Amino acid sequence: MSEALNTLFAKHQDTLNAATHAIKTRDYWSPYPENPSPRAYGETANADGEAAFKGYLNQSFALEMPGIIGEAGSEVSPYGIDLNIKYPLVDLDVLLPAMNDARKAWRDVGPQGRAAICLEILERINQRSFEIGYAVMHTSGQGFMMAFQAGGPHAQDRGLEAVAYGYEAMMHTPANTVWTKPQGKHDPLVLNKTYTAVGRGIGLVIGCSTFPTWNTYPGLFADLITGNPVIVKPHPAAILPAAISVKIAQDVLTENGLPAHIVSMVIDADPAKPCTADLAKRDEIKLIDFTGNTPFGNWLEANCTQAQVYTEKAGVNTIIIDSSDDYKGMLRNLSFTLSLYSGQMCTTPQDIFVPKGGIDTDQGHKTFDDVANDIATAVSKFLSDPERAAMVLGAIQAPVTADRIENSKTLGNVLRESEALTHPHFPNARVRSPLLMSIDADQADTYMQELFGPISFVVKTDSTAHSIQLASEAIKTHGAITLGCYSNNDSVLDSIEETALDAGVALSCNLTGGVFVNQSAAYSDFHATGSNPAANACLSDLAYVANRFRVVQSRRHPK
Amino acid sequence: MSEALNTLFAKHQDTLNAATHAIKTRDYWSPYPENPSPRAYGETANADGEAAFKGYLNQSFALEMPGIIGEAGSEVSPYGIDLNIKYPLVDLDVLLPAMNDARKAWRDVGPQGRAAICLEILERINQRSFEIGYAVMHTSGQGFMMAFQAGGPHAQDRGLEAVAYGYEAMMHTPANTVWTKPQGKHDPLVLNKTYTAVGRGIGLVIGCSTFPTWNTYPGLFADLITGNPVIVKPHPAAILPAAISVKIAQDVLTENGLPAHIVSMVIDADPAKPCTADLAKRDEIKLIDFTGNTPFGNWLEANCTQAQVYTEKAGVNTIIIDSSDDYKGMLRNLSFTLSLYSGQMCTTPQDIFVPKGGIDTDQGHKTFDDVANDIATAVSKFLSDPERAAMVLGAIQAPVTADRIENSKTLGNVLRESEALTHPHFPNARVRSPLLMSIDADQADTYMQELFGPISFVVKTDSTAHSIQLASEAIKTHGAITLGCYSNNDSVLDSIEETALDAGVALSCNLTGGVFVNQSAAYSDFHATGSNPAANACLSDLAYVANRFRVVQSRRHPK
Repeated sequence: MSEALNTLFAKHQDTLNAATHAIKTRDYWSPYPENPSPRAYGETANADGEAAFKGYLNQSFALEMPGIIGEAGSEVSPYGIDLNIKYPLVDLDVLLPAMNDARKAWRDVGPQGRAAICLEILERINQRSFEIGYAVMHTSGQGFMMAFQAGGPHAQDRGLEAVAYGYEAMMHTPANTVWTKPQGKHDPLVLNKTYTAVGRGIGLVIGCSTFPTWNTYPGLFADLITGNPVIVKPHPAAILPAAISVKIAQDVLTENGLPAHIVSMVIDADPAKPCTADLAKRDEIKLIDFTGNTPFGNWLEANCTQAQVYTEKAGVNTIIIDSSDDYKGMLRNLSFTLSLYSGQMCTTPQDIFVPKGGIDTDQGHKTFDDVANDIATAVSKFLSDPERAAMVLGAIQAPVTADRIENSKTLGNVLRESEALTHPHFPNARVRSPLLMSIDADQADTYMQELFGPISFVVKTDSTAHSIQLASEAIKTHGAITLGCYSNNDSVLDSIEETALDAGVALSCNLTGGVFVNQSAAYSDFHATGSNPAANACLSDLAYVANRFRVVQSRRHPK
Repeated sequence: MSEALNTLFAKHQDTLNAATHAIKTRDYWSPYPENPSPRAYGETANADGEAAFKGYLNQSFALEMPGIIGEAGSEVSPYGIDLNIKYPLVDLDVLLPAMNDARKAWRDVGPQGRAAICLEILERINQRSFEIGYAVMHTSGQGFMMAFQAGGPHAQDRGLEAVAYGYEAMMHTPANTVWTKPQGKHDPLVLNKTYTAVGRGIGLVIGCSTFPTWNTYPGLFADLITGNPVIVKPHPAAILPAAISVKIAQDVLTENGLPAHIVSMVIDADPAKPCTADLAKRDEIKLIDFTGNTPFGNWLEANCTQAQVYTEKAGVNTIIIDSSDDYKGMLRNLSFTLSLYSGQMCTTPQDIFVPKGGIDTDQGHKTFDDVANDIATAVSKFLSDPERAAMVLGAIQAPVTADRIENSKTLGNVLRESEALTHPHFPNARVRSPLLMSIDADQADTYMQELFGPISFVVKTDSTAHSIQLASEAIKTHGAITLGCYSNNDSVLDSIEETALDAGVALSCNLTGGVFVNQSAAYSDFHATGSNPAANACLSDLAYVANRFRVVQSRRHPK
């Protein structure tokens, strides 16, 4: 490793050590302040970030890649602003061979060198969290606070988490050893052995429109740390946050004497004719990370057999309500959960199972209708302050999601209408409040299909046992990233725990405070399990990184 | 964990700790003596083992499985003995649901409990190494010493290695944690979290005829330690070693109050109509380990998308000879390498590249013909003692391999004829000595096809650079598990190292003593890399185990 890289590694070593410690102990930890405060980020950080974001509008965004042949881009903010940014288009037959050529240089930097570069990239990304926050806000539609946190520090945490796992997995094997095998009275057999972590090839990270950094950084940094050049293929509606991140990575690479195109970005010349499938099938692509819809995720898994494929797809998340000793807290918690980013999270619950006989609570028995209406009322009350509503709901990312809300209101008995709200600061923003309906358990065809967006059902079941059975079916058949439950009864909780283990889903029990079923904390919470149809991998664990590199060994007798 | 399991874990904890230490330091280590000596295994171990082996002949072999519907088996020893052992046939529609039912019990034993049971199984297998050695000898055709070592302690080492990796991967995540997130002046957010390692489903381990235990134990124990019941599907020609191992596992399971069929065995009712493909496609099968031919391995990878598939297939292993400062040592080393088990190892070199201009050695310049003839002479000299020849060569496992030798002798210029030898103790044994030919580099179609068995070529290349290029092509196109080289020239060695890293193959340089290119040591040498067509996995690393289980988490606030 060069002197400069040694220095860079020393700069970041404490953070790396703390991250590897965190993933093993899983207590709360983060090096990236989640509070967008002047104290953490500087007095002018917000203004600078907003100015930087605005500086991109109506311009060409430059990246360093061989084979640039033009530009494209047509992002429109869900808040009603045409971004009009153009990004480079690239000839894959030039880019991919060049990236393959860069593999040796990236391999030879070694695990420490790659860790140093990854952590430097993440640090610089962190310093630009406001700029990236505005970019995430105006592509995903998230409210600014969420865009800053989920698109900034929390996404950076997930990137660093992947670096920590990849580093751990590589360091599990020493770089070299002396193997000495006793031979009784004879001299021992002695071999000097070396072990080198070698990346698999070029990685492809296919981003989504709702979490353009949070769902991109894990694959990007997992590939990088394990020795693979990476192509980021952002969603056509959310390119800017990826482009800024790629540019930062390129800057750090070139400063360290490495080819910038070790991190590249490919976009569609025409979003109506996406290039992703053809790119994913290229023989040079050996790793694919995908976040998005189930059919394309399944297609990638079935067809891109030249690559290791890691997918996060759609699912039907559920909540089982059996009883509660903090009914108000439950309603408050659920109202935030259903409102946050207008239900456009892969972790938002769609179905809330409540027994037809109602539930026992600290406020007495509540009938099914009580519970259903109380949830609807709680959501409405929570959203009654327009500033808070705008901040929490954000905007609807895609017109198709707004249409889906409109088309879904006849699917059940409406408990709460979805309203088109006027954003206090962005008059053209596409803002919708949650649609909440009740439905009978026998209408499974309706509530067991994924209805992405702020569309939820309170499902009337025969009993809690029936609720558990339906939740299990949803997880096993349709996939799920989260399962929530509310119960005071230990045997019910045990039964739900067993269902979660059996079906393979993360369980949150009795959340009534400041933690929400749709939020997960890096270094502590695994996002998805990889063992139900919603995802074939999780963020992050050893399985997520261990097969992104292979160990190649060499042995010879000492001279 | 029960008191009994706690005791069992305590019994084996030192061995487990030593194994996890060994895979991280990769120095020589083994708990299983490789020397079949009375001192290590007891005065009567050999006689007892042989008697136990003979006791199986002409009998029905009992295993505990639900759904037994008959028996089958038609093994014939390559040493000319009809084993005539019958094994249970089972109804998969009874066995597979029963195995799925057993998943919960096996999961709930926990990582320590499963480690304790795996190590107890391995210890008992070790105690029966003579019995298993005779079973391996009379199915694979290996000479007894090799059958004992490779089929006994070395196979046990590979099993324990997989246990150690699986245990490490699971223990990387704690069983539970308290997550405390500061909230400034407010009370912190606190969650109690649990993390449970959950197996993927039922594992299927498809054995081969040449290494019925060495290539079966890694998948078997990797599946078991990570919480998966396992079906062993041995090769129809080599069932007995697997059956004995399965029986031992079943004994240990039942003694610990667990269903015996957590480890089951499935065989073909009729070897002419193998059931393996249908079994491998079953939805209950979530993990597949396969050792065998490339077409079926590729078929499994492409078609069994419901499972994680780990394959070791065929390849073309090569040796590059550039120069030598110990010509005699090189010849001696190569003669053993080419003779051992009649070249029926997936690690035996098939092509030896020698430049047409010859090579420089400590015994002066040697022409191409000198080198080719000297290798042939060295093999003949090594095999001139009939006892040693019989012990090292063993017998040819399959008639098709004997036919292949016969059919291959016109493929090149014969340097050394293969001879049908009479075994000093088994008159009907199918024994053949190595066929060695020279061939021009332009005949790639001939020497680049895998010719399994004692068939090798000395290939006349333009130069060492040409040799390296051909070796790279063999590895990348046809796959390889080993690459050997001989050179005194550091820049040549560097170039070969780079080729090995680039093509993804384990390299052995200048082996002239008691280590051979076709042998690998558990805990230190990775067997295959998983990054060339010969195998998509290696024995063993974190990638081999990390995706055999998923972590399912649960979180709730403390009361």
